[in-house]
Amino acid sequence: MTVYTVDAGNGLAARIARGLGDKLVIFEKKTFPDGESYVRVAEKPEGAAILVHSLYYPQEKRTMELLMAIDALKGIGADVVVVVVPYMAYARQDKRFLEGEPISIGILLRSIEAAGADALVVVDIHKPSVLEEWLRIPSLNVVPYAEVADYFRDRVEDPVVLAPDKGALERAGKVAERLGAEFDYIVKERDRITGEVRAIAKKLDVKDHDVIIVDDIISTGGTMALAAKHSLENGARRVYAACTHAVMVKGALDRLIAAGIEDVVATDTVPSPVSKITVAPSLVEAVKNVMGEIA
Amino acid sequence: MTVYTVDAGNGLAARIARGLGDKLVIFEKKTFPDGESYVRVAEKPEGAAILVHSLYYPQEKRTMELLMAIDALKGIGADVVVVVVPYMAYARQDKRFLEGEPISIGILLRSIEAAGADALVVVDIHKPSVLEEWLRIPSLNVVPYAEVADYFRDRVEDPVVLAPDKGALERAGKVAERLGAEFDYIVKERDRITGEVRAIAKKLDVKDHDVIIVDDIISTGGTMALAAKHSLENGARRVYAACTHAVMVKGALDRLIAAGIEDVVATDTVPSPVSKITVAPSLVEAVKNVMGEIA
Repeated sequence: MTVYTVDAGNGLAARIARGLGDKLVIFEKKTFPDGESYVRVAEKPEGAAILVHSLYYPQEKRTMELLMAIDALKGIGADVVVVVVPYMAYARQDKRFLEGEPISIGILLRSIEAAGADALVVVDIHKPSVLEEWLRIPSLNVVPYAEVADYFRDRVEDPVVLAPDKGALERAGKVAERLGAEFDYIVKERDRITGEVRAIAKKLDVKDHDVIIVDDIISTGGTMALAAKHSLENGARRVYAACTHAVMVKGALDRLIAAGIEDVVATDTVPSPVSKITVAPSLVEAVKNVMGEIA
Repeated sequence: MTVYTVDAGNGLAARIARGLGDKLVIFEKKTFPDGESYVRVAEKPEGAAILVHSLYYPQEKRTMELLMAIDALKGIGADVVVVVVPYMAYARQDKRFLEGEPISIGILLRSIEAAGADALVVVDIHKPSVLEEWLRIPSLNVVPYAEVADYFRDRVEDPVVLAPDKGALERAGKVAERLGAEFDYIVKERDRITGEVRAIAKKLDVKDHDVIIVDDIISTGGTMALAAKHSLENGARRVYAACTHAVMVKGALDRLIAAGIEDVVATDTVPSPVSKITVAPSLVEAVKNVMGEIA
């Protein structure tokens, strides 16, 4: 196999290549004066092509680059193109919440397939069932529970793991299990008299524990900041925030640090100042698995 | 039918709706804090949906909006979605000029079809054969020869029409025919002694004529500026530049005016200060034609 990337900004593609024991080839890339993108690949793959390309901001430009890169690999003679998208854009628009809305993730997935992808690997996509719903090619979603837990193993004492809402409880459970810790989720309560919103663990007492709050994405960081604040008020020793995708808009990181969080960490699906955990080990396994499925 | 547009910036969608005698509906559009686009349509079509959406800069963002709008129309119950793309992005990357390149226009066309388009109408696409090559749905390319000729009819005296290169000669011929004028194409010559590049009409004497230089796109305007300069040196009375798509990068308009051009005009496929000609009449006819083909 040969591993490809269009811009190897944060080293994730290189780590995957190293993990697979394969060569990394970086696409040539430029922008024309009218704003259109251009990519070109200079080397044919040895065996299957593994294309690693993440769809963070500017999402649409990076999507076009991804589609062009798939087509370029097919054109240069790749029989099999396995597409690895560490961060999938538009994943939260996964149904028509209101009449007249598009299902944007469906469009993206169909475009990737139409461009010639033979398999798709994603990391921690918002609703994994969209893959089977919109794709005919094999696909795999990996969630870096192990990488997140392992990061904290020697950094925390008596940890408890909190999900910022009930939907993330399974995630908290998986991380907690690997740490031998208890877990719970956070409920928001509005004080009937003052109107103030509080966010507290449903059942668990966080007093004198290190608290790790885990979620899939940090966007504005509002929910995490609230949860951190109340954990500290309830006697937590230190509070950590961990997510897979550090989307981080509108001063999210400042909001989290200001809320008293000791350390904010994310994986390298989206490059950010807090992307300290690599998802390469999970992706190496995932690529091996889908290759087995294709063969 | 009902005509739709995502942003009706320059009135072209409204003119098409007026020409068809149909209602215009404008999509709701916003950008999320993380940079992703959102579109929503509030009204079902009466009969077929005609979606007018041009893919000028930022091309990839506008492409995503187009794909989302097609899907939203299908989702709200449109049986037929005719997509009208006045300016098609990535149309010049229509083959693998070098090994390892993508065929970007093929990707775009396949994505539009995959999103649910039932027919596609474009204006003056770089290589019209790409439509049949990449699409299974009916498609139509219209070229606004008539609109361009009609614009100049009462504005010029004794006109000759020049193509800036041999490839645009048919275009010059079609415009000239409607004006009852002669036409020719421009050849570039490098002076063997001074190295200076001259651009002159192949056969035609432009002396005392009004010269109209016609092309599909003005990008940097370099070729047109050179042709205008030499037309004036060869005694042309006034020189005009006309194009379909006013892409206009890197100070193109200043370059053209500085070269002595009297008036630079373009159609409204791309909004610009010189988009004085509407392609609505051609597009109204084209929509009627493809509707006939679908029915």
